[in-house]
Amino acid sequence: MSEPIKPVGDFAQLDTDRVRRRGYPEAIYCEGKTVEQVRAIAQAVDSDHVTLFTRLNDEQATAIMRELPGAFYDPLARLIAFPAEAPEPSGVSVLVVCAGTSDLPVAREAMHTARYLGRSVSLIADVGVAGIHRLLAHEEELQSAGVIVVVAGMDGALPSVVGGLVSAPVVAVPTSVGYGAGAGGIAPLLTMLNSCAPGVGVVNIDNGYGAGHLAAQIAAR
Amino acid sequence: MSEPIKPVGDFAQLDTDRVRRRGYPEAIYCEGKTVEQVRAIAQAVDSDHVTLFTRLNDEQATAIMRELPGAFYDPLARLIAFPAEAPEPSGVSVLVVCAGTSDLPVAREAMHTARYLGRSVSLIADVGVAGIHRLLAHEEELQSAGVIVVVAGMDGALPSVVGGLVSAPVVAVPTSVGYGAGAGGIAPLLTMLNSCAPGVGVVNIDNGYGAGHLAAQIAAR
Amino acid sequence: MSEPIKPVGDFAQLDTDRVRRRGYPEAIYCEGKTVEQVRAIAQAVDSDHVTLFTRLNDEQATAIMRELPGAFYDPLARLIAFPAEAPEPSGVSVLVVCAGTSDLPVAREAMHTARYLGRSVSLIADVGVAGIHRLLAHEEELQSAGVIVVVAGMDGALPSVVGGLVSAPVVAVPTSVGYGAGAGGIAPLLTMLNSCAPGVGVVNIDNGYGAGHLAAQIAAR
Amino acid sequence: MSEPIKPVGDFAQLDTDRVRRRGYPEAIYCEGKTVEQVRAIAQAVDSDHVTLFTRLNDEQATAIMRELPGAFYDPLARLIAFPAEAPEPSGVSVLVVCAGTSDLPVAREAMHTARYLGRSVSLIADVGVAGIHRLLAHEEELQSAGVIVVVAGMDGALPSVVGGLVSAPVVAVPTSVGYGAGAGGIAPLLTMLNSCAPGVGVVNIDNGYGAGHLAAQIAAR
Amino acid sequence: MSEPIKPVGDFAQLDTDRVRRRGYPEAIYCEGKTVEQVRAIAQAVDSDHVTLFTRLNDEQATAIMRELPGAFYDPLARLIAFPAEAPEPSGVSVLVVCAGTSDLPVAREAMHTARYLGRSVSLIADVGVAGIHRLLAHEEELQSAGVIVVVAGMDGALPSVVGGLVSAPVVAVPTSVGYGAGAGGIAPLLTMLNSCAPGVGVVNIDNGYGAGHLAAQIAAR
Amino acid sequence: MSEPIKPVGDFAQLDTDRVRRRGYPEAIYCEGKTVEQVRAIAQAVDSDHVTLFTRLNDEQATAIMRELPGAFYDPLARLIAFPAEAPEPSGVSVLVVCAGTSDLPVAREAMHTARYLGRSVSLIADVGVAGIHRLLAHEEELQSAGVIVVVAGMDGALPSVVGGLVSAPVVAVPTSVGYGAGAGGIAPLLTMLNSCAPGVGVVNIDNGYGAGHLAAQIAAR
Amino acid sequence: MSEPIKPVGDFAQLDTDRVRRRGYPEAIYCEGKTVEQVRAIAQAVDSDHVTLFTRLNDEQATAIMRELPGAFYDPLARLIAFPAEAPEPSGVSVLVVCAGTSDLPVAREAMHTARYLGRSVSLIADVGVAGIHRLLAHEEELQSAGVIVVVAGMDGALPSVVGGLVSAPVVAVPTSVGYGAGAGGIAPLLTMLNSCAPGVGVVNIDNGYGAGHLAAQIAAR
Amino acid sequence: MSEPIKPVGDFAQLDTDRVRRRGYPEAIYCEGKTVEQVRAIAQAVDSDHVTLFTRLNDEQATAIMRELPGAFYDPLARLIAFPAEAPEPSGVSVLVVCAGTSDLPVAREAMHTARYLGRSVSLIADVGVAGIHRLLAHEEELQSAGVIVVVAGMDGALPSVVGGLVSAPVVAVPTSVGYGAGAGGIAPLLTMLNSCAPGVGVVNIDNGYGAGHLAAQIAAR
Repeated sequence: MSEPIKPVGDFAQLDTDRVRRRGYPEAIYCEGKTVEQVRAIAQAVDSDHVTLFTRLNDEQATAIMRELPGAFYDPLARLIAFPAEAPEPSGVSVLVVCAGTSDLPVAREAMHTARYLGRSVSLIADVGVAGIHRLLAHEEELQSAGVIVVVAGMDGALPSVVGGLVSAPVVAVPTSVGYGAGAGGIAPLLTMLNSCAPGVGVVNIDNGYGAGHLAAQIAAR
Repeated sequence: MSEPIKPVGDFAQLDTDRVRRRGYPEAIYCEGKTVEQVRAIAQAVDSDHVTLFTRLNDEQATAIMRELPGAFYDPLARLIAFPAEAPEPSGVSVLVVCAGTSDLPVAREAMHTARYLGRSVSLIADVGVAGIHRLLAHEEELQSAGVIVVVAGMDGALPSVVGGLVSAPVVAVPTSVGYGAGAGGIAPLLTMLNSCAPGVGVVNIDNGYGAGHLAAQIAAR
Repeated sequence: MSEPIKPVGDFAQLDTDRVRRRGYPEAIYCEGKTVEQVRAIAQAVDSDHVTLFTRLNDEQATAIMRELPGAFYDPLARLIAFPAEAPEPSGVSVLVVCAGTSDLPVAREAMHTARYLGRSVSLIADVGVAGIHRLLAHEEELQSAGVIVVVAGMDGALPSVVGGLVSAPVVAVPTSVGYGAGAGGIAPLLTMLNSCAPGVGVVNIDNGYGAGHLAAQIAAR
Repeated sequence: MSEPIKPVGDFAQLDTDRVRRRGYPEAIYCEGKTVEQVRAIAQAVDSDHVTLFTRLNDEQATAIMRELPGAFYDPLARLIAFPAEAPEPSGVSVLVVCAGTSDLPVAREAMHTARYLGRSVSLIADVGVAGIHRLLAHEEELQSAGVIVVVAGMDGALPSVVGGLVSAPVVAVPTSVGYGAGAGGIAPLLTMLNSCAPGVGVVNIDNGYGAGHLAAQIAAR
Repeated sequence: MSEPIKPVGDFAQLDTDRVRRRGYPEAIYCEGKTVEQVRAIAQAVDSDHVTLFTRLNDEQATAIMRELPGAFYDPLARLIAFPAEAPEPSGVSVLVVCAGTSDLPVAREAMHTARYLGRSVSLIADVGVAGIHRLLAHEEELQSAGVIVVVAGMDGALPSVVGGLVSAPVVAVPTSVGYGAGAGGIAPLLTMLNSCAPGVGVVNIDNGYGAGHLAAQIAAR
Repeated sequence: MSEPIKPVGDFAQLDTDRVRRRGYPEAIYCEGKTVEQVRAIAQAVDSDHVTLFTRLNDEQATAIMRELPGAFYDPLARLIAFPAEAPEPSGVSVLVVCAGTSDLPVAREAMHTARYLGRSVSLIADVGVAGIHRLLAHEEELQSAGVIVVVAGMDGALPSVVGGLVSAPVVAVPTSVGYGAGAGGIAPLLTMLNSCAPGVGVVNIDNGYGAGHLAAQIAAR
Repeated sequence: MSEPIKPVGDFAQLDTDRVRRRGYPEAIYCEGKTVEQVRAIAQAVDSDHVTLFTRLNDEQATAIMRELPGAFYDPLARLIAFPAEAPEPSGVSVLVVCAGTSDLPVAREAMHTARYLGRSVSLIADVGVAGIHRLLAHEEELQSAGVIVVVAGMDGALPSVVGGLVSAPVVAVPTSVGYGAGAGGIAPLLTMLNSCAPGVGVVNIDNGYGAGHLAAQIAAR
Repeated sequence: MSEPIKPVGDFAQLDTDRVRRRGYPEAIYCEGKTVEQVRAIAQAVDSDHVTLFTRLNDEQATAIMRELPGAFYDPLARLIAFPAEAPEPSGVSVLVVCAGTSDLPVAREAMHTARYLGRSVSLIADVGVAGIHRLLAHEEELQSAGVIVVVAGMDGALPSVVGGLVSAPVVAVPTSVGYGAGAGGIAPLLTMLNSCAPGVGVVNIDNGYGAGHLAAQIAAR
């Protein structure tokens, strides 16, 4: 029986009890951590369950891949998963939809997260509302999904339209794609919080990990 | 030949030269004016061209209607037009579209303004994007309009969808309908400024008059 | 077979197709509507499925209860449901938790909404994090819930703590309870979006209806 | 007859139907795209109609010019047009006016956009309101334009003055020129939204492309 | 010889030394004070030098006029001056200019303040920049003023234009006239702080008293 | 031995364990509670230790005074204490200083709170920094205090000056006194957070209760 | 007799009429201009009156100094003046006071500007309010100045204290020195706008040039 | 007897009187100072009492260590103390608690500051509320501390929970750890200001120095 808390140096306490308590392992958010701290944590993880490293810069990723060769690494999504093999999928399916090409990094972080937490996933890219027929061409796929993660920057209008088409819950992720008034993702965040379609739960700007995690929990059965 | 500036008391200078210079008469924005000031201005207007009184409260409206019996008054839009008869329409048509029932006062202010500045106008209400098929049922009407004014609160997503369907320019009006984060119209304003469909010009929150005026200028030929 | 859109006067188009398309009926958001508009809509609803009227003021509520005697009315939650009998519950259970007494109106709006959309619901009140043992006394109840709606104003810290204790998804609702910096619900909204526990989906400030709706969708099986 | 949607890799879906539907081709917004993505899109465009690449950095521009030699490239405006020859101008004229030298990049993006969408264009630079006589010296030119795009940073006062002088519609573009309170273009954006002259439609900060597009639509006949 | 500090009840300490130290008497800002507190202060003032009571509500004004009959009271400016007779004017002249009729209350508060602090004053109303020729008609009067106070709401563009025409310093006062984005005076405040004409000093929104005081100091010789 | 949690109706759970755990009783924050809820809580309190009711409106205060005759009530501070007799003071002294007359309600809420939590208290009013000598006249009193609570609106500059004069910790309370830019207390809040004198801890705007509580804890020995 | 407007390339129009109209020459704000543009302007200036180049980066400064050898250059203030000799001082004296060492660049930009516009200037550094006696040691110097420019970041409290000590007008300049809440100068800007001492005119954050210009105008006689 | 103010060059005036007046020496905030200025100050300090240099960049630190060999330097906390030996601890103990690994730099700046101002200190790291049992495992240590400094980014919920567990005062430090909505520390700042547990005093974002200073003052006896 493992200890519920595993100290790493004097700077971190891994919450190893989390799998038992919540059913999902802890992820390591790497922004603001030094390369040394990240490496020490990589040395401390074991392969009993999947560990995700998120928001990696190049140097951190290199250090981790050296400690954990064979891990899965998606540079676009800035995410490493160890071990590389995802669990056998269970629950209902998670569909990730994103408005523009520039939203792909966040969309893929969400998709990988849900996959490594045990769900079957798929992705539709570049179906923004300015060409609404591109989205409507996928109406069936949308209506058969168990949970839908919608990722959008700029006007952030996509979750309102998707939410209005389906019975599944929608997890909305604003991205920092855009500029000018409401830049940094504030504009799509506000749009999503004010969605005129009910059934939309919002996570923080660019928080693909959080969206994938929530989707995985919702899709669990 | 009239003087270019007509003083009213010591508090206002009517820009009577404006019709000659800009082709459109001045409107009287009544918010922040006393009933006495509004009445004095009503006494000073003549029937050579249409005068609009906007953002009226009940007391101001009563005072004006007493000075200008026979004027047109729409209490929902808080607008009075004198004389009541609109000019013969010219130019291309102006279509006003609004997302929800609560956006109607602003939508009607825009419609009346465009009509009294000499355009033919029509209105489609309650076609928000959460039920996208309600909007698409009007696709032909949208595509045949000369200019479209889109009025929306909450998520403000309607102009992006409409803008993506048509070749006509879109004038977008955010309304203060909504609550919580981005309340007071900030959320739809930001959405509209970040519209992923180009061809959308935005006016201030609840500024139906400004939208109708701009639409009338665009629709002039 | 009913028409997908049912016009009410010239100001509203009821989206009656919504039950078929989304599985849940439309609700009538009453803020910003006139008493006459609300009454006309009340006359147009039928008892085939439940209709919710939300954000009612006293005058609107009185008008509706006159049209729909026997409807369920909770003045604290400012909500009317017609017909009064909720559907037989299905899916997993929805637990609503609120931090303080002042958050109760929003918590009850969420609870009623989930109940009328077909879920079994329960409520725990006044368990803010400043007396953490009050919350921990309910740990088992929290861990057996299917979905948890957490309602909090002020510091909005409750969802982070609850989210860290359970495997179920958490729907977080910031309320406008509080004052000073971040008043109007901005402080708890930001706290919830930045929750250090993943698995938290946020809805707009005071949006009990949206939270209950999302919870009902998540809890559906 | 071409397909309405043309996929590029698994990251983009070109909306080739847009010319038919809206009358104007799609532009490629390059910020946030990788050089590889931009190059792949450049390989996919054809010369049937003009394609604009906007918000280019140097590396992206070099990659595109290698794929599309002979394209028009304005480094100051960060814009590439392919093919280089603009359509024969139609409709009324578009006049671009900018307040200061630092607003020129945005002003030129607007001018090129309108030109490549088929309008005749001209540009007046450095006529800010602090030396009002510089602007008034151009009064005739202003009054004969079909549409005026006004570009300004700092106090953003220019559209109010221009709008008050002419009957043509004004498209106002705030720029991020300035510093301190309201930096990043917020100050001129708010000024323009609050313009005391009606007939001003505002686009997002630094959005020269959007302004040029809207102006081209307005100037079409 | 008077005491430098004169206590009123246990809630106020009149800074009677201020005339000696700064050359100008203290004013009583009445917002947030109870009627009883205001009355007690009125009883404590003497007629050695002028005392101004600013931001009065009706009830406070009535209470003061009862204590200080013969005082000067301007209800529009919400200001009382005691004694009513202003000092013999000295220094150069102060010209107050306001953009719209709704800015008059603030403009008059500024004018009265400067007058009671010993300057000669005059006022030009309703010369907003949307009809620039109305302003230019006063160019000579502007250029001969010693100090100019410019009062404007909405777009707040007037000080930039005035500042560019004259050699005198300009004191700019944003007003809370306006609505929508940047309401409450934020829009004109930012405009004025970003004025492209140097030589503009800004005071707080609606702060006519502060503007008049600063102008009086500048105009002192 | 009492239960750690005492339920009141189904809407509140009094944290009676708090005295044992923290050493200080719970206070009842009354804003947002109905008169019925407040009355029910008043019925549930006992006289074993002091209970504070804060942010009372008139109706709530009347209801409580009827249930708890003999309680201490300060309408200006909107606070009731029961029982009325404060504990014998212990620890070092708490000095409350406020900048203006309008800050008195908050200052008195802080003073009463500290007194009822067992400290000796005193108050200096109307010593804002615009007349710095008024403050310096109290330099000795400031330097002999154990803890100083500084209450200020407007520019909020007082804590920086006081903090620079003394060795005691300073608790700073911004108030919502003021108007225009940074209104509602944002301006003094930011000033206090950016105090150039270290040793200043800030509480929320108008939070006299919180300031008094923190001061009482600091002054405990 | 010179032309009132002197074009430079197709990107700038020097307002050479400005000396006649306003009494002060135009300055060249260099942020956002290319090195080529700045060089071309340097080639166009003559030595009839002083030209200031402000907000220079190193590369721009080098280019100008090559065109105008012998010009005055202060790298800390990022300012070049040509010709180097300042006019004979006239009017009353300008005193610049700054709160901290980090505010010096802005303070020196203000001082140089006033000097080159014809005033006698002096500077007191590092007299922030956290050590109020440092400031009071200069009380006489403060009281004999004709105009005082007060430069401060962080809490921005200095102008309130200075303004309360003197009869001269105060020009307040917030700086971007500071961090955290209200960073970028917002905190001191709000403090200064809310100064409890009247007689304070505020310019934009870090706008030393604007402050020096305004001070020079005020100090002119 | 030393002079109360010690000038360094013409850019700084060391407040050497501060130890006598406040009991604590001045610290040198190095952000925004040039390396030359920092070196000159390092040359001017003596070893009579401890001097802290805070917010150092690498170059500044190197320069100081060359002037003051043997000083204490913590690169993570960006702090140098000279002389390196801290005073003998007095007063009650200061406990620093931080939520995540990324908050460590600020936590250590607070800890060092309190230690060099004469207190005994200890540190608990990585006990965020998402794993509440990690915190509760330290309940005894928390309850025996004299003062607790709580450092947290993201949701900033930790001070509310800690404050609710103890009788000691809590100094809360928001950090800029986090992203998206409320980034830069705004989210945890607002959370802490709205803490539902009284007894929490907040300092500016990332202000470890200020927190340590305040804690040292509170813990003095």
